[in-house]
Formats: sequence, structure tokens, C-alpha cells
Amino acid sequence: MAQENPITPREKDFSAWYGDVIAAGALADHAPVKGCMVIRPNGYGIWELLQRELDDRIKATGHENAYFPLLIPKSFFDREAEHVAGFAPECAAVTHGGGKELEEPLYIRPTSEAMICTMYGKWVSSWRDLPVMINQWANIVRWEMRTRLFLRTAEFLWQEGHTAHETEAEARAEVLAMLEVYADLAEKVLAVPVIRGVKTASERFAGARETFCIEAMMQNGWALQAGTSHDLGQTFAKAYGIQFQGRDGALQHAWSTSWGVSTRLIGAVIMVHGDDAGIVLPPKLAAVQAVILPIPGKTDEEKALVREGAAAMLADLRAAGVRARVDDREHLRPGAKHYEWERRGVPVRIEFGPRDAKAGTCVLVRRDAKGKSPAPVAGLGAAVAALLGTIQSDMLARARAFMAAKTSAADDYAAFRADLEARGGFFRMRWCGDAACEAKVKEETKATIRCLPLGEPDDAGPCVVCGKPAERRAVFARAY
Amino acid sequence: MAQENPITPREKDFSAWYGDVIAAGALADHAPVKGCMVIRPNGYGIWELLQRELDDRIKATGHENAYFPLLIPKSFFDREAEHVAGFAPECAAVTHGGGKELEEPLYIRPTSEAMICTMYGKWVSSWRDLPVMINQWANIVRWEMRTRLFLRTAEFLWQEGHTAHETEAEARAEVLAMLEVYADLAEKVLAVPVIRGVKTASERFAGARETFCIEAMMQNGWALQAGTSHDLGQTFAKAYGIQFQGRDGALQHAWSTSWGVSTRLIGAVIMVHGDDAGIVLPPKLAAVQAVILPIPGKTDEEKALVREGAAAMLADLRAAGVRARVDDREHLRPGAKHYEWERRGVPVRIEFGPRDAKAGTCVLVRRDAKGKSPAPVAGLGAAVAALLGTIQSDMLARARAFMAAKTSAADDYAAFRADLEARGGFFRMRWCGDAACEAKVKEETKATIRCLPLGEPDDAGPCVVCGKPAERRAVFARAY
Repeated sequence: MAQENPITPREKDFSAWYGDVIAAGALADHAPVKGCMVIRPNGYGIWELLQRELDDRIKATGHENAYFPLLIPKSFFDREAEHVAGFAPECAAVTHGGGKELEEPLYIRPTSEAMICTMYGKWVSSWRDLPVMINQWANIVRWEMRTRLFLRTAEFLWQEGHTAHETEAEARAEVLAMLEVYADLAEKVLAVPVIRGVKTASERFAGARETFCIEAMMQNGWALQAGTSHDLGQTFAKAYGIQFQGRDGALQHAWSTSWGVSTRLIGAVIMVHGDDAGIVLPPKLAAVQAVILPIPGKTDEEKALVREGAAAMLADLRAAGVRARVDDREHLRPGAKHYEWERRGVPVRIEFGPRDAKAGTCVLVRRDAKGKSPAPVAGLGAAVAALLGTIQSDMLARARAFMAAKTSAADDYAAFRADLEARGGFFRMRWCGDAACEAKVKEETKATIRCLPLGEPDDAGPCVVCGKPAERRAVFARAY
Repeated sequence: MAQENPITPREKDFSAWYGDVIAAGALADHAPVKGCMVIRPNGYGIWELLQRELDDRIKATGHENAYFPLLIPKSFFDREAEHVAGFAPECAAVTHGGGKELEEPLYIRPTSEAMICTMYGKWVSSWRDLPVMINQWANIVRWEMRTRLFLRTAEFLWQEGHTAHETEAEARAEVLAMLEVYADLAEKVLAVPVIRGVKTASERFAGARETFCIEAMMQNGWALQAGTSHDLGQTFAKAYGIQFQGRDGALQHAWSTSWGVSTRLIGAVIMVHGDDAGIVLPPKLAAVQAVILPIPGKTDEEKALVREGAAAMLADLRAAGVRARVDDREHLRPGAKHYEWERRGVPVRIEFGPRDAKAGTCVLVRRDAKGKSPAPVAGLGAAVAALLGTIQSDMLARARAFMAAKTSAADDYAAFRADLEARGGFFRMRWCGDAACEAKVKEETKATIRCLPLGEPDDAGPCVVCGKPAERRAVFARAY
């Protein structure tokens, strides 16, 4: 019995589809506070798994976690001109505490360089105190006007790494190493292929010398900036006083970095893998990787057979390291359960009825690639564990193929504009480096330079906008 | 070579000792924002392990994690009279966002009942939607005037569980189950024995019907409330609209609970186990459980022998599940390393020099009970793993004995006052239930009723204050 699909098809309205997927999967909800979200258990479960994967990688690369205050005096921001210009306009300000007006407003952190670099300044005095390599998991507030669940909300969750180094080269190596950690997370865990690149000056983090990024392609061809890693040079060390006595005895400023990814990655997972039936979770981010849906028989004997069989399968799955569950709710019909787990994006559903119980079989249903396949109950745990690995890599391969198909080199500005309107995607075009050309494209097409990809050979030729010499290609796309 | 001890002895000034231990262990620092703290990596590592242990228990008892907004409109608090009276005076208020004045101030959450119960009201409509059992890990702001690192700061980290149930009995069972989870965490993980009890009306959570708590004894005899679990009755469901259609078809209000523990538990660990050399970590909360301190020899051959031996020991320790590390920093002398790890509270130090390497032995130094003991390198991993178990249970046993020795029954008010001044601790005294008697004790002695212990037989007699009949004894103590 088909239920009415509460999800708008992607083709009809991608933006409505996105909202419907979140509602149907009970992933998040709009909070009764302007621009804020509630991350519901189904959505937060994704974040917890993503956090665990990333936290392990952050620690494996020599970092430790710590926690710095939520509230930062306004005057701290004022110490770095570009930084305050970039962030102050979107800050939320606490002006009263304990019923009294404060002497100075406190900003809720929109990012924590101002606070963290100030503390590093207290802790560091010699080259022996370096590097400082600290990460924090925290909530962030940026007063956004146009909000969208996960992608852009007034409050969001993220991690922000902040490091201070003895040398410029060491800091740059850190920036690139963390970019690679993010790319690895995106590809291996989220199954989201990314382009590693460097931002143009106009898209740089306020105060940074260089901002590196990973960019992913959503199913509507738009780009999503999925993580950034900033080379801060000595700018913040100078503004916040991170000084140390070097090996030569001279006092000098440290070289600092910062890098972060946020709950917007959940939006990327939805928009890269979701289909018209809802979210599709890569197995590594699925709190429930396999759900057993028992179809109880009619007689008590059949019911017992199914119940016992399901319990044995569950034990086998768990022993094989699969995060599994049995859905034995009696007030829901099998069809309703089927749709609920589909909308929650659970990678594998396992149908199991009295006839299966007698035959020692079950039916596996993949969420990512529709279609059912029978499987023997014997050895089910190992089989499903292997299947989850296949699903994880299939999802990455499909997303990679999609991105490749929707990425094209363009040498003619008019043709690019027509193609962008007609089918969207990423456009690799030569750019002379002039901010005016970049701005013209943005104004005329709403596409921006997502990044200058790393590790590509030079490809000299005329700038697609002005015709002047350009050394390489940039990736242009409309972006969230 | 003895170094100067930067830690004030406990006997001299317990409060100064506490601050010195935190500084010497680099556990936390005062932030340059009034009343706020920075939790440094050594302190945050304790919190991460504690979180993991508690999170596992919260999930094992059927709860899921989610995330709710930091900012709550002031008007939400106004809906529950007792709640707003209790919390509004200590709220931090956001009045400006994105450069504009807000129409209504937003409070930074001092606790989240107002927001979470509002969302539950949206999600729940039938008895089939119950129970809702959600926990969140979050930061909290309460504008405190007198702050103390970990124990009382304007911002702190905690978890807050919020559940909604169909029946009164189910809600009460949840409240007591979570109290037991907290007690289990305190005793099994923190090695901190606790008294389980119920608060008097004057110490109840603002708006709660009943507040249950666990209370621990610090080494100065003061009490620390280490966790609370609140039976909220239908008060919050009525204020925030959690209504459902019951099994009988009638519309009714849910029964709700909330419960939380915070980073103040780190303060409890310090004050229960610490000594004049610094913090002493129970093994379950030690990010580094065993540290190998190689004493390099003079010749290259000796150095290689020690280096290779230490590496093999490290591998053996890790294989045995011990969180171990080698401290091979060359710019520090063995004595300096010894003191540093002592101040960080690492449960086991392992000294290993060229003579040990040749003999196949090493020296184990317990942090909790001073004294060295030789051990063979062969089988070291298993031996240290076993030793950590012994240390964990010894620490609980010692703290239990301490609490027992410092707890006394008192039936005479004057004698109690003298004893409280002379040696402090917990006093089990009969109380008639009159708030006036409770207030008199507080005013005259600064001791408060910590709780009415659970599971004790009645012990009728005269109230220690007024002499009127009392049914049972309450625990009185000075408290943080």
C-alpha cells in the first residue's frame, strides 16, 4: 500500500525537496528563535558519528581538545582591523548580565581567534612552548538574515582548530595537513568527493593571509564550501600578543593557523546523496546501519519463529560490528515501518517473515540503490558488514561520477553563461587574477570563484572575462 | 634535586591549594572575561573521558542526544512563575544582533526546560509519541558573582536530560534511575562516594516538584552537590504545552523530568583525591594512565637500549589497553619530568634506565599511594592494567573511609556547632521539616541541609533545632 510521499521531487523544486527531506527524516526543526535550529536525534546522530571520525583524525595528527569561553569582549575584536570588519556586523551582543548593564558588550563567539590567540599569548614564552595545537568543539553564533537548516543558521555547531608555530613553513604545513584531513573525512566518511583549493582574496577568512578550502557539488550543481583551513601568518599573533623567545634568543611572533568544519556538512550529505524518498546515509554516518523489519505471521508459532529468528540475526549483525536494530513496534504496519526507515536513510533494511524464518533466508533492501536481494540467514552479519562497505564506496563513486559529469572547462564567457543557466555545475575557466573580473561574473551570473584548485599544472591562456593573460583555471559555480 | 613546590599545602589553606593544583596541572585558566574559565587540554581530557562514560550510560538507558538553541526568548521563561523567579536574575541577555536592537531580549540558556519543553509540545500529540527521552551536551551561562574554577563559573559545560512520560509513576522511575546512573558514574568512574538523597524545598530546582541529588564530601569536610535529577510533575508540561491524547482518548499533560551533571565534577575529583603534590586522577579519567620516563644512559649503546626498551614497553602497555605514553623530551631532566607528571596526576609513572634495560626490569611509581616498586618488563602491560584496577578501587575505598570518618550523628545543637567548627564534615541530625529550623542552622553555622538520604529506615526523635518531633535525619554540611 503506497503512502503519499511527503517529499517534493528534486526536479520540481530542489529547495523545497531539501526542507521536506529534513522534516520527513526528523533530522532538524526550526526553533522558535529567529534563524536557530533544533538538531533532532536523527540528525544529531549523524553529527556524533562525524564528530567521532573527525576527532580521531584531529587527535591522530597531534592535537588536543580544550574549551574556551563563549563570550568575547567586543574590544578583543577591535584589535585586528580586518577581523572586526568581517565579523562584528554579524555578532550577537550580550549587554546585560545578572540584571545589570555590562560595562562593555560581550560578543557571542562568531569564531574564536580573538579569545584563543589571547590565551596562547599568556601560555607561550619560549620556542619550547611551541607548537600549540588545540582544537575545540563549540557552538557559534552569526546573525544570518537568510537561514536554511544545517547550511546557514544563526547558531551552529563546529570544531575550530587553532595552532601556533615557530616557523612560517611549519604553519603552512599544518594548514595543508588539516585541509587533507578534511578532504579525507569528506571522501572516506561522508562519501562526498571534494575539490581542494585556495580561495581568492574576496572569499578569504577575515584577517587570513590565505584560506584553503574543500568544495563539494550538490545534486543541483551548486557548490558547498565544506571546510576551510586558514594560514593566518603573523597577523593574529601580532594583534593578540603571541610572542616567544626563539632559538637565537630573539623575541618574535608566532605563526598561527585556524581551521573548521561545521554541522553544515550534514546539509552536504543530504544534498549529495538524498533522493526523492529522503536522506540516504553513507554507512559510516548511520547510527542505525541495518534494521530488521519482522513481518509477524498469523499463528503464535509463526510469531515466535520470527521473533526468535530476528533476535538471532540481530546478535549476529552486532557481533559483526554492524549497528543494527529490530523494529518490533506492533502498532505500525510493515509498510509504515518501511517508509519510516527509508526516510531516515538507513543503508540496509532486512525483511524477515515466517516463510523466510522457515527457509533460513531474509531479504536485503539497499537504501542507496533500490532493489531487493535474498540472503541466507547463516552468515548474515558478515554479509551485511561487507555490503555496508560496498555501499560506502558505491556512494562515493556515484557522487564522483556526478561531479565529473557536471564539471566542464569553458573558454567562452557567453557559452558559460548559457550552460550555467541550462544545466549548471562547475565551470573550470581561466581567470587573470583581477578582482574586477571575479566581481563581474558574480554580478552577471551569481556564480563565484569557489577556489583555485591545488596541485594542477599551469594552463595559460586568455582570462574568460577580460581576455588578458591568465596562468591557470579557477572553478566557478553558484554556491550555498 | 627537589624543586620548589608551587602548591600551598591543604592544611595551610585549602582554597589556595585548590587554585594551585589547577594551575600546576595546567587544568584550567581564568579567562579574560569576568567569571569565565578556559578548560585547558589537561582538564578537558578529564571531561572527555567523563563524558564518554556518562554518554554510554545515558544511551544504554534508552536516551538519545540532540541539540537545542543556546538562545531562549525571555518570554519563554515568563510562562513558569517559579522557574523565571529562580533563573531570570542570573541570566545573560542578548539585546543586539547583526547590529540591530532585538524586539525581545534573548537569554543565554541557564538551563533549557523552557526551550526543550516547548519543542516537545510540538512533537508530541499521542501517547504513542511518549516517552520522549533526550539528552543534550551543552554550555550554560549563569551570571555568578563569586566564581571558582570548575565549581562555579559564569559559563560551564554540562549535560541536561529532559524526558516526557505518559504517567506520573514512569516519570518518577526515570528520575530515580538517572540519579542511580549519576551515583554509579561518581563511584565507579570518579572514585567519589556519594550520598543519594532528596533536597528540601528551599534547595529545590526552580519549578520542580522534587529534586534528588548526589552529595560528595571534599577533603576539607565540605559537601559538593555532584548531580541532580528533578521530578517536574506536570508543571512544565502545563506551562509549555506538552499535551497528548491518552489511551482513553482524553487530552492530558505529560509528566516530565530533567537531570544534569557538569564540569564541576572535575572540581570534585580534585578536592576528593588531590594531595599536596597536585591532582590525583582515578585511572578511568586519566587520558595518560601510565607514562614511561626513560633515563637515558651515557653511551650511545645505552641510549639505544633504553630507547628500544621503552618503545617495546609502550607497545606492550597499549596492547593491554593502557593509555600510555613515553616522555622522551630531551630538554627536560628526569626530575622535572617526574614533577610534571605528578602534578598532572598520572596514575602510574614507569622509570626505566640503562641498568633496568639490561636487567629486564623497571620501577613503577603509583601516584595515589606514594612508594616505588620494581617490576619485570616481561608482562608489564598486563601488570599495569591490573595495577590501574587496584588504584581505581583503592581510591574509592580511601574516599569512602574518609567520608565515613568525617560523618557523625549529632543530637545536640550546641555540640554540633562546636564540632562543625573544630573538624567539619557531615552531620546526620533529626529535622522536623520546618523551613525555619533549616534557615536558623544556615544563618548560625553556614551549614545547610544537603539532602534527606534515600533508603534509610525512620529514626524518630526530637528535631535538633526546635525539639519538635522529627521522623528522620537529614545530612547537614557546609557546601560549595
